[in-house]
Amino acid sequence: MTNKILRIKTADKRYELPAGAGSDSMHHDPQYSYAVTVLELASGDFGTGLSYSLGRGNEVVIKAIEAYAPFVVGRDLREIMGDFAGFWRSLADESQLRWIGPHKGAIHMALASISCALVDAWCRLKGLPLWQVLLEMRPEELIRWVDLRYLEDFISRDEALGLLAEAYPSDWRKHALIAEGYPAYNTSVGWLNYDIDQLLANCRREVEAGFDALKLKVGSPDIGADVRRLRAVRDAVGPHVRIMTDANQRWSVPDAIKAGKALAALDCYWLEEPTHPDDVIGYQQIAREVSPLRLASGECISNAVLFKNLIRTGGIYFVQADVLRLGGLPEWLAVAIMAKKAGVPLIPHASDMGQMHQHLVFWQAIGLGREPWYLEYIPHLREQFVAPAEVRQGRYLPPKLPGASTRLVNVAP
Amino acid sequence: MTNKILRIKTADKRYELPAGAGSDSMHHDPQYSYAVTVLELASGDFGTGLSYSLGRGNEVVIKAIEAYAPFVVGRDLREIMGDFAGFWRSLADESQLRWIGPHKGAIHMALASISCALVDAWCRLKGLPLWQVLLEMRPEELIRWVDLRYLEDFISRDEALGLLAEAYPSDWRKHALIAEGYPAYNTSVGWLNYDIDQLLANCRREVEAGFDALKLKVGSPDIGADVRRLRAVRDAVGPHVRIMTDANQRWSVPDAIKAGKALAALDCYWLEEPTHPDDVIGYQQIAREVSPLRLASGECISNAVLFKNLIRTGGIYFVQADVLRLGGLPEWLAVAIMAKKAGVPLIPHASDMGQMHQHLVFWQAIGLGREPWYLEYIPHLREQFVAPAEVRQGRYLPPKLPGASTRLVNVAP
Repeated sequence: MTNKILRIKTADKRYELPAGAGSDSMHHDPQYSYAVTVLELASGDFGTGLSYSLGRGNEVVIKAIEAYAPFVVGRDLREIMGDFAGFWRSLADESQLRWIGPHKGAIHMALASISCALVDAWCRLKGLPLWQVLLEMRPEELIRWVDLRYLEDFISRDEALGLLAEAYPSDWRKHALIAEGYPAYNTSVGWLNYDIDQLLANCRREVEAGFDALKLKVGSPDIGADVRRLRAVRDAVGPHVRIMTDANQRWSVPDAIKAGKALAALDCYWLEEPTHPDDVIGYQQIAREVSPLRLASGECISNAVLFKNLIRTGGIYFVQADVLRLGGLPEWLAVAIMAKKAGVPLIPHASDMGQMHQHLVFWQAIGLGREPWYLEYIPHLREQFVAPAEVRQGRYLPPKLPGASTRLVNVAP
Repeated sequence: MTNKILRIKTADKRYELPAGAGSDSMHHDPQYSYAVTVLELASGDFGTGLSYSLGRGNEVVIKAIEAYAPFVVGRDLREIMGDFAGFWRSLADESQLRWIGPHKGAIHMALASISCALVDAWCRLKGLPLWQVLLEMRPEELIRWVDLRYLEDFISRDEALGLLAEAYPSDWRKHALIAEGYPAYNTSVGWLNYDIDQLLANCRREVEAGFDALKLKVGSPDIGADVRRLRAVRDAVGPHVRIMTDANQRWSVPDAIKAGKALAALDCYWLEEPTHPDDVIGYQQIAREVSPLRLASGECISNAVLFKNLIRTGGIYFVQADVLRLGGLPEWLAVAIMAKKAGVPLIPHASDMGQMHQHLVFWQAIGLGREPWYLEYIPHLREQFVAPAEVRQGRYLPPKLPGASTRLVNVAP
């Protein structure tokens, strides 16, 4: 029983950011924070899982992790991972805790932290980085990590298994992406509190460093200000750099349509979070009105049920599923497979600063046969991770160390 | 400054239920619990607010109440209540706490507890029961208690104000409902763990006691078992009693359609929570397929944005908005006004055991000019309230004491 889970510890980690960093139209003073799960095995091995918040309230998620802990401690990791989706669902639908969601808010973020710790521990036990663990699982094994509950009207288990089998790589080690790296887009250039000089200097610097895609916060009190910033950035970086825009839920649906039309006239890659993340019908209306500009959303989309509807109504085109906002990998994999079925790109929001998602996008490209679009890049917490992602010339290099790259400095196993 | 809010205390109250009570297809062992906010004013007055859970996890909501407390303590209650919706929105969109939702899960339930405590304190200060406070507010005052953010594409402020003004009663004291009482339907008869004998005995007893509407839990492993229970109850109570059915999110969309068709062939008033509460498109599909049987939902619908979509897509007909699941009164009032606009009934889910909702349905009927449909009745916690709702012959009598009837025994102000 060396795989027995002996105990779960938590850590409430909050990090100061440089002035202006992280600011957007709804969050003027974020303090990037993690509600950390550290899971210890009888063997002495351990795993680290994260959930992300903006500072205040991180302690609420910690409390929710503690509420789940009794259902995990004492269990055998190997048994859990043999039916990971089943175990995950037993936690997601725990008969009393379920009410606090269901499948949303603090309790679901806690489930993400715990289930990512399980994944990290498992990969460390196997001595492989997560992306290789995923690539080495046969479709019939991997499907047991995918939770499809409440998605049956969009995709059946057989269909999901078929998509995995169809894309299953005979020899993933030869895939070109492993040498090339996975493209990153840079979010850290364009925070809303940066003045125009700082904004332009940041954009020029990062294009110089090899990035070909940059994100710009919008949702200023006056859409004219957003348009001016976007035009200035376009002038500074030239026509070949992609520019994403992000309103962080600032607008009502009518305001989003107006603003979206103004942005659609310019050359931008997407408009992210124009309005409230739960507003499936609002997204559908906005998407129709601002076409050909496409909508993106995910950092605040709580569960796979909402993604199912945002995808099938055409509300979003760019699926920004975040494994720390969803309840963890079984739900993220379900969303990835739905995106594949619908033929829309999954470009994760990186509340983990890309640490775990780098594994997931390498798997998605190689193991699920999707295009290598982008993974978000935000460098502000690089020094806080034991093994920060390596990004060179605007591309993530494949992680080499065993695990899910979630381990933080100064968080004792 | 006698209206200054001096401090906020919390209490984690959990109550044992009689064997089998509260059981349904997803929650086999609930322990009805409240995350209580007690708010003290400099004057010595106080207010009690509640959020509801099923036991485990109640402490998570308590932690979230504590996270909001610093934004409330030190403020003047009179100023807050003069722009209640504005203040409420400043909490709902607090720049860091917002992330833990937004507007869902533990953080939003905590906002309900806090904002209901504000309402209770305010009504106690005025020396009136909540329903009378609402009825005495002119439409231009009341609209300042209604939060319409993110609902603009369905209803404008002017339109909402118009609906309030149109229904504004010239003399509410003469309304017949005050003498008659407000109809209740009885949920406590039909828990899923009750065997058929207990079920039938309960139903006969409560019909005898004056109830003309009863709720039956469904979602048994086999829909045949649900149908047999429903038929047996119908035989026992006769054709004139309304029977509601409630699946508590048990089914996938395809399974809900199958089960709903079986139930539609019988005579039931609604089918509640056939599937996941976030599944707006799923509800729309089920509603189309099982018509004329109508769908109900609300106890797990987190916010007004979701209600907006469930209402306008025709997914739900019976709007079960619960002021303790929504973030409190500013959001509940918005849903009530949307339901009025759409012409669909609002019949609250009563996680407060009807204590606060009895005020709201009297207001809804008299002040918003809606039909007196029903308010849910669950008697299991009657002894826990200082002034439990008076229900006679299946009707709620109008509460007489100042406040929102939220005060619990053994929770010190």
